[in-house]
Amino acid sequence: MMRPMFSRCAPLRAAIPPVSRSLGVFQSVRQYSITPEAASDSKPQDIDPSKLVVEKTTTPGALKKPEDLIFGRNFTDHMLTIEWNKTSGWLAPHITPYQNLSLDPATCVFHYAFECFEGMKAYKDREGKIRLFRPDKNMERFNKSAARIALPTFAPTALIDLIATFAKLESRFIPEQRGYSLYLRPTMIGTQKTLGVGPPGSALLYVIASPVGPYYPTGFKAVSLEATDYAVRAWPGGVGDKKLGANYAPCIVPQREAMSRGFQQNLWLFGEEEYVTEVGTMNFFVAMRDKETGQKTLVTAPLDGTILEGVTRDSVLSLARERLAPEGWKIEERKYTMKEIDEAANEGRLIEAFGAGTAAIVSPVRSISWRGKLVHCGLQDHEESGEIAAKMKTWMEDRQYGDDEHEWSYVC
Amino acid sequence: MMRPMFSRCAPLRAAIPPVSRSLGVFQSVRQYSITPEAASDSKPQDIDPSKLVVEKTTTPGALKKPEDLIFGRNFTDHMLTIEWNKTSGWLAPHITPYQNLSLDPATCVFHYAFECFEGMKAYKDREGKIRLFRPDKNMERFNKSAARIALPTFAPTALIDLIATFAKLESRFIPEQRGYSLYLRPTMIGTQKTLGVGPPGSALLYVIASPVGPYYPTGFKAVSLEATDYAVRAWPGGVGDKKLGANYAPCIVPQREAMSRGFQQNLWLFGEEEYVTEVGTMNFFVAMRDKETGQKTLVTAPLDGTILEGVTRDSVLSLARERLAPEGWKIEERKYTMKEIDEAANEGRLIEAFGAGTAAIVSPVRSISWRGKLVHCGLQDHEESGEIAAKMKTWMEDRQYGDDEHEWSYVC
Repeated sequence: MMRPMFSRCAPLRAAIPPVSRSLGVFQSVRQYSITPEAASDSKPQDIDPSKLVVEKTTTPGALKKPEDLIFGRNFTDHMLTIEWNKTSGWLAPHITPYQNLSLDPATCVFHYAFECFEGMKAYKDREGKIRLFRPDKNMERFNKSAARIALPTFAPTALIDLIATFAKLESRFIPEQRGYSLYLRPTMIGTQKTLGVGPPGSALLYVIASPVGPYYPTGFKAVSLEATDYAVRAWPGGVGDKKLGANYAPCIVPQREAMSRGFQQNLWLFGEEEYVTEVGTMNFFVAMRDKETGQKTLVTAPLDGTILEGVTRDSVLSLARERLAPEGWKIEERKYTMKEIDEAANEGRLIEAFGAGTAAIVSPVRSISWRGKLVHCGLQDHEESGEIAAKMKTWMEDRQYGDDEHEWSYVC
Repeated sequence: MMRPMFSRCAPLRAAIPPVSRSLGVFQSVRQYSITPEAASDSKPQDIDPSKLVVEKTTTPGALKKPEDLIFGRNFTDHMLTIEWNKTSGWLAPHITPYQNLSLDPATCVFHYAFECFEGMKAYKDREGKIRLFRPDKNMERFNKSAARIALPTFAPTALIDLIATFAKLESRFIPEQRGYSLYLRPTMIGTQKTLGVGPPGSALLYVIASPVGPYYPTGFKAVSLEATDYAVRAWPGGVGDKKLGANYAPCIVPQREAMSRGFQQNLWLFGEEEYVTEVGTMNFFVAMRDKETGQKTLVTAPLDGTILEGVTRDSVLSLARERLAPEGWKIEERKYTMKEIDEAANEGRLIEAFGAGTAAIVSPVRSISWRGKLVHCGLQDHEESGEIAAKMKTWMEDRQYGDDEHEWSYVC
């Protein structure tokens, strides 16, 4: 019953914002507004890295001590911005000092959630070179997310090129120690200034960067999860497999509820069968022995539209097929239920479980609260990680930092 | 299996944005930034209308000719803003000249869709008084939407009071003719400037206003719908019953697809049973005769979490119970399927169908494209509306404009 959903945008006119005055209680700063749409005879342009304009800051910020870095709170000196409108296409890219966005209060991003993003990292290798990790996967997903909400798409290699330039420019912000990196946040927002519900006639793509330390500064710390049965994150035919802002705000209350009861994250179940989908904002893996055969199996949910298409998920699967399968492991993408995990735990067949995402790479799971009981996920009390999670983290970092030279690593 | 989902916010610190510089290609304007969070010893405050600060524009805009008004494209001279942070609660309300918002690019509204809104109207009655229509219903829903995404709630009467003051201030923008009104857009956005996914520690509530003309300037024009079976708008346990930005961007592609095949709107079906939920951004009503008894029945989908809790929907139901039931109509909120509509149409039992929402009040439906055929919804070729839709529009406007004095009408 699926028909193709993605076609080109219908036209909607963007208006020029009034120049306006600032008010007492509000802090008055200068910052940039979106360019009024220009008339154009030519066909809409794709992103063109050769047109990049760089304006460097004259007031470079001080570097924080690596141990004081907090995820997504401190940003680098600059930002990358590229405006789009339906007439001209993508305008010239700019790297500018990091600054506020100035937007009309009627802008569609504030009302209808025309917004999508990516999360990726730049790493500094032993030779001081800057490396991205599988940026092609992020660009592919970014385009899918944008298209699903009628925002414009672009040539993936063009944006990778620009992000690489931006990351190199901010090289001084990337600590050299293993575990440190520069978190990059490509974001696209609809900027049309009208309240009619329709495809945005203009958009802004921007990239900001936040230096980050290791997710587990003193080694793994296994988390406990609460299975969520009263709220549903995603469903077939919905948008839960896209990296849209729309998928995040509704997750906060269930996450806060889980935390209020002493759990670090919630685990999203789906349907009466209680299929396991994903954990908080990560994909989820379970290692267990088969009930009949004792076969060691690494299981994760399939890409059926109800889970995010994680780049780390894909990397874990790929590494598992390359390195665990030869050791006798079976690797499965299939639907599995909370009941199946519980049974495996009860019968001593549950080996370990972990979340997988860009921030932590892998996040070992100690237990899951489900139907009033605590399902133990295979770790001994003194253990903070299982063997597979620990191996995966090392294997991934080896490729991210270029110690294991591999096509996944993109040298800027 | 439902547990309470709404508790108070967990703390997250907001940072002060750097004052920054503007760039060549971007238009430089002055506008306001969010107030840095102030330290406070007292308990968080609710919205306090007595603290309102009004700064009137010194450059009032020209009025457009009523017939040139386009929904949500032209705005009045001012806007109402109220900032919130977790320490102080709601700060003093301000009415200021309409102006851009200045926000850090890391602000959570751009990344995680921390945003919800309302749609309501102010009307000018025969005596020149300004009236709102059931503002208590909008405030109730606004609070429910905000709570569901961990944004702050407020005392409904306080915001109604402020909106009334704002609407009176903009009185000159409201044309006096019947059918004209001032569309009001209360909006709440999360303004925390960090990328960690958590409850926003600060927010901005603002109201902008757009003078609008009648949805059907030359009388009703019945629309044709395309039933959407390849995408799903909402799900039980999801957030489809809240007025969140998150529910809107994902609707554009199916709407555009329907338009590309010549239909004005899409009709959202749900599940294998193809339950009828809502049309585009309106609720949906069907008037038909019962298969067995011939009983005239007005049917709409129930509030089961998969449809928006429309104020117009509620008003239509209420008026139907008050005025149609005594004429022998049965009024039903229940699940019904596309197959049921098709059968009624085939058997000559389908009387009429219409959408219901703030913009159009009611929007008569001529036909629905479903499974490759066109289901005719009871109108003759020369008719643009059925009797019920026409009556509803008149009854509603009588109350909105104060001709039928009623508690639904709130005199500012």
